[in-house]
Amino acid sequence: MDIEDTLLMIPGPVKVAPRVLRAMSRPMISHRSGDFSAIYSDCCALLKPFFETANDVVVMTGSGTVGMDAAVASTIGHDDKIVTISNGKFGERFTEIGERYGRAIPVKFDWGTPFDLDKVEAAVEDGAKAVAMVHNETSVGLTNPAKEVGEIARKHDALFIVDGISSIGGNDFQTDEWGIDIAITGSQKALAVPPGLAVVAVSKRAEERFLSQSRSYYADLRAHLKSARKSQAQTPFTPAVSLFFALQEALHMAEEEGFAARRARTAQQAESVRVAAKALGIELFPKVNQHSHYSNTVTAMKMPQGVSDDKLRGGMKKRGVVVSGGQDLIKGKIFRIGTMGMCSSGDILRTIQTLELILAQEGKIASCGAGVEAASRVLYK
Amino acid sequence: MDIEDTLLMIPGPVKVAPRVLRAMSRPMISHRSGDFSAIYSDCCALLKPFFETANDVVVMTGSGTVGMDAAVASTIGHDDKIVTISNGKFGERFTEIGERYGRAIPVKFDWGTPFDLDKVEAAVEDGAKAVAMVHNETSVGLTNPAKEVGEIARKHDALFIVDGISSIGGNDFQTDEWGIDIAITGSQKALAVPPGLAVVAVSKRAEERFLSQSRSYYADLRAHLKSARKSQAQTPFTPAVSLFFALQEALHMAEEEGFAARRARTAQQAESVRVAAKALGIELFPKVNQHSHYSNTVTAMKMPQGVSDDKLRGGMKKRGVVVSGGQDLIKGKIFRIGTMGMCSSGDILRTIQTLELILAQEGKIASCGAGVEAASRVLYK
Repeated sequence: MDIEDTLLMIPGPVKVAPRVLRAMSRPMISHRSGDFSAIYSDCCALLKPFFETANDVVVMTGSGTVGMDAAVASTIGHDDKIVTISNGKFGERFTEIGERYGRAIPVKFDWGTPFDLDKVEAAVEDGAKAVAMVHNETSVGLTNPAKEVGEIARKHDALFIVDGISSIGGNDFQTDEWGIDIAITGSQKALAVPPGLAVVAVSKRAEERFLSQSRSYYADLRAHLKSARKSQAQTPFTPAVSLFFALQEALHMAEEEGFAARRARTAQQAESVRVAAKALGIELFPKVNQHSHYSNTVTAMKMPQGVSDDKLRGGMKKRGVVVSGGQDLIKGKIFRIGTMGMCSSGDILRTIQTLELILAQEGKIASCGAGVEAASRVLYK
Repeated sequence: MDIEDTLLMIPGPVKVAPRVLRAMSRPMISHRSGDFSAIYSDCCALLKPFFETANDVVVMTGSGTVGMDAAVASTIGHDDKIVTISNGKFGERFTEIGERYGRAIPVKFDWGTPFDLDKVEAAVEDGAKAVAMVHNETSVGLTNPAKEVGEIARKHDALFIVDGISSIGGNDFQTDEWGIDIAITGSQKALAVPPGLAVVAVSKRAEERFLSQSRSYYADLRAHLKSARKSQAQTPFTPAVSLFFALQEALHMAEEEGFAARRARTAQQAESVRVAAKALGIELFPKVNQHSHYSNTVTAMKMPQGVSDDKLRGGMKKRGVVVSGGQDLIKGKIFRIGTMGMCSSGDILRTIQTLELILAQEGKIASCGAGVEAASRVLYK
């Protein structure tokens, strides 16, 4: 297998367009130059509609986690309560971060099952300074009810922090409409940039309630906002300049397609994966209800009975298609296909067709074609 | 001025070789794949001789500051004392970080003046858990006495943390020989990679004295070491994969040249800048003594009497050569030329020649040529 001719269908990092890869090969520039400031400002201007927000946006150098870390470290003091809702790996990460800085009040649900909003409200009304949740739980392929939790947060005057890392730009995600005080994404998801940048949108309300000093020196939203607001926008510490070149190019590509058009395309692509799964007798992993939906950026499916992770994902990889497995407690039990950013119809059909080859080889389907046909009816309707 | 035909002579980010820029344009891969692990392991194997250490090395996604942050946050509890020595901007940053997590004991010297080792020892012997210093103070062009401070740290059983960000790979820097428990560099300095990665070498002694939990969730050396030691090396959070491609390529280039040969070349290049300055009647900024030397990675010079920063640096920039100014309290009073990584003799001669044009225009020299001639005698001897 040639690693440079492999189809990457994991829920991030995702495939990066050649235009964006080429942008990264531009010669280095000073991060304290007007040239860099112009790039940063251009990125922030485009990130606002991407986030559906009028709030200020900052770009931090680090993985998406540094954005989650900054949100909590900038707001939660030693004795402050933060309700952390989880139904998968990344929700649990918010609990870990909350415990690092203050008093985390975990509200846990089984991985892949919807939130019980009454339980959430019972935790929040007990004097929480903030509520943190993951909108799109990458580990289980489920979108959680951010709008509804946002209403609970407002009602009880708590700050609302949302990890939108694998969501923003792919799923419906309305930062301002849903009252999100701190929203976070990562460059390697729907933005379709290589990993290494976290983007954070911060409301005035959040800023008014910041601690006098962030608990973390590096993950400090106040410092990032201050630098970004200089007459020439800057970052407090040396930024990953090449990744900003990539971010700017990728945002221009998203703007050319249209932010809403890209979300609609992503929704259609995820729908095509779901109907293909159904046609192939594969069950979707998450449980959904009126507020919690199948994710449009990552589809999590149960491993077919009797087929090992190694046979399925290993076999697909040998044929040049990389999909993700389950993490932690559902390792080996599910597999996941990402549909974000510059994913194409052809990419999806190649993925489904490769999956069919494995299923036929393992005796799970009699002949190939049903999945590809079902998917193509959605993709080309 | 074409920004893509500009010579970047600042002390980081530095010029990146085309081979390294091209490495970044490789298609994205999964950060949880064997392919990524192999790259990370290869980088760590080459980083050990680069640091002159047998200690474990981890690569964090972030600016060099995240490495400084991780060093302090992983070791300093609320009541722990950390002596932070400063004679420039980055030393002061250690004081800020120390204050964020514990009890910083600043030992301050005027910017650009050598440490008084007796004052350092007096602070350390008063029960400090750690001593932190900057080896190469980028803001003033001075290398500080790491070997001597290391001896003081050992004598009083304190951990020794050294910011080697603009030093390692350029200046003489002996992590193990000097007893450095935590040594830090950044990708955009002597490694000649774009910014966005911090590299940290950690001694067993430091690890034994880590806090049970880092004070920072993201800047957590324990978590990074744990992931790096897995049978397939990983990072705890999604790494900036493209920058790892670049780091691997740049390390291979450094190995091909030879780590010692590169340091010798860098020393020669800095010497050529210093003799050119002397030939042009320009004074070097830092004060040196038997333990504190002119930096080989950044030469800081006093702004010639009556010449403004705008005339000098602005004029050079208009002619396609970017050099740095002074920061904070010495803004406008000095200018700085970086000599790191892939800087060539031609780059230096173009820089000196451009400086001469400005000086002649400003009436500071009668005719051009003396600086270039002096520099070339060092470069081509």
